[in-house]
Amino acid sequence: MPASSPLYAYIHGQFTPLDQAFLHVSDLAILRGYGVFDFFKVHAREPLFLDAYLDRFYRSAQLLELTVPLERPALAGVIEELIQRNNLPLSGIKMVLTGGYSANGYEPGKPNLLLTQQPLALPTPEQVAKGIKLIIHDFLRELPSAKTINYATGIRLLKQMKAQGADDVLYHHQGVVTEAPRANFFVVKHDNTVVTPAIDVLAGITRHNLLTLSAPPARIIEGPVTLAEVYQAKEAFLTSTTKRVLPVVQIDDVVLGSGQPGPVTLAFLQALLELEAQQQR
Amino acid sequence: MPASSPLYAYIHGQFTPLDQAFLHVSDLAILRGYGVFDFFKVHAREPLFLDAYLDRFYRSAQLLELTVPLERPALAGVIEELIQRNNLPLSGIKMVLTGGYSANGYEPGKPNLLLTQQPLALPTPEQVAKGIKLIIHDFLRELPSAKTINYATGIRLLKQMKAQGADDVLYHHQGVVTEAPRANFFVVKHDNTVVTPAIDVLAGITRHNLLTLSAPPARIIEGPVTLAEVYQAKEAFLTSTTKRVLPVVQIDDVVLGSGQPGPVTLAFLQALLELEAQQQR
Repeated sequence: MPASSPLYAYIHGQFTPLDQAFLHVSDLAILRGYGVFDFFKVHAREPLFLDAYLDRFYRSAQLLELTVPLERPALAGVIEELIQRNNLPLSGIKMVLTGGYSANGYEPGKPNLLLTQQPLALPTPEQVAKGIKLIIHDFLRELPSAKTINYATGIRLLKQMKAQGADDVLYHHQGVVTEAPRANFFVVKHDNTVVTPAIDVLAGITRHNLLTLSAPPARIIEGPVTLAEVYQAKEAFLTSTTKRVLPVVQIDDVVLGSGQPGPVTLAFLQALLELEAQQQR
Repeated sequence: MPASSPLYAYIHGQFTPLDQAFLHVSDLAILRGYGVFDFFKVHAREPLFLDAYLDRFYRSAQLLELTVPLERPALAGVIEELIQRNNLPLSGIKMVLTGGYSANGYEPGKPNLLLTQQPLALPTPEQVAKGIKLIIHDFLRELPSAKTINYATGIRLLKQMKAQGADDVLYHHQGVVTEAPRANFFVVKHDNTVVTPAIDVLAGITRHNLLTLSAPPARIIEGPVTLAEVYQAKEAFLTSTTKRVLPVVQIDDVVLGSGQPGPVTLAFLQALLELEAQQQR
């Protein structure tokens, strides 16, 4: 199937051309922002770290008291068929579970499950070599342990972010750092220990993959991180499914370390790339 | 047109049977919970306090940097036509403005505006005579001044609420009371002064209508309200478009005052009913 064929989505229990994938306006995602989702990469038709993403998706659903309408083997089968139908070289699959069609506009109905797959762009070597700039914002996510669809604060900050020439946002609450809207955050301290906030953050899969490396290039731990410590850090980076390990070189007006992506960050990126490659063998 | 005719919605710039009103899954409400809404009552084909609701709808849109695709007179015209087409005796109209179809799943597109109208049930005399029970929950809304679609916390609490035999939730943050998920909150103090929280609450239209009564039945002001003060109050009540003035007689295990709806609460309900009646003359 050539890549120019129409993409398929999975919705209402069947495969449907993506441009015909609709939800009725009584859906609780539309009326009340009620839903969870997850997102994983597919390299050469192979989903990466799929078990971890499925674990998190079912866990998020449970936290919002939503039942995924497919058991796990059936959902894995849908993912497999979607990948075969769409046949994209490098892509991301998004799974969304909404509160369903609500009878009274507030109480959940039977959850709607939808899957879409789209081509994916990963950070280029140039972006990695340059690093990115963050702005800070005081905000605590409502239910940090669940991957809910609520991104109102992050999206509202897009304009301010661009106006300040920044690439992303770093959330903190009263000076204690948590995460970025769509990524986890790490600092490299002067003794080369890498620390990522443990509390009030999303359980990122890439974050977990770095924390559990069998041979990490430096000591890497979970623990509290304050803004003051961030400003003093040698290096910092974000992790996410699409960002992988992305160096952070500036926060507001503060240049971190040398202002260049540092060796510890780049070593963890290399370790992640090797881990991803192992998944595809 | 008999009431059994199919209801119309307004979506994608046209009137469509409600059961055919759909949004594509790339809409930012579905993907990121990004949108605002408002809701007003229609009595005998006459919208009540429409100017105030339109003010708030456009203000909420502005706070999320979304542009309502219709100017105000055009939107009022759509509302008028929807009311004529659906011809319901007592109803509510919901206006939703979403972040639109997003090209990359995160940045807003051209906002989607949709209007639906459905029959409405107001509190019965029996419900008013009995009063309701609340449970408390520590929570601060993300953007209290905007009427966003994000109700994740309120909806997640539905099960707990029902398990405790409660009818609604009272949000507080560290003992300072704010509001209910879909209503404002008032206490009646022992000197008969009525107080409603001023900060971190939605600018309720019913709340505003009570605060600006030309001849209020008791002194009514905005100000801080603590949980300790709530437990000591003579009376308490919720206000909203659908709840009007609804007596609160119990919070968790604490019975308020006599445990019956009190005279000050019922006097404000009467004042609101008169104000509503004036709107229809």
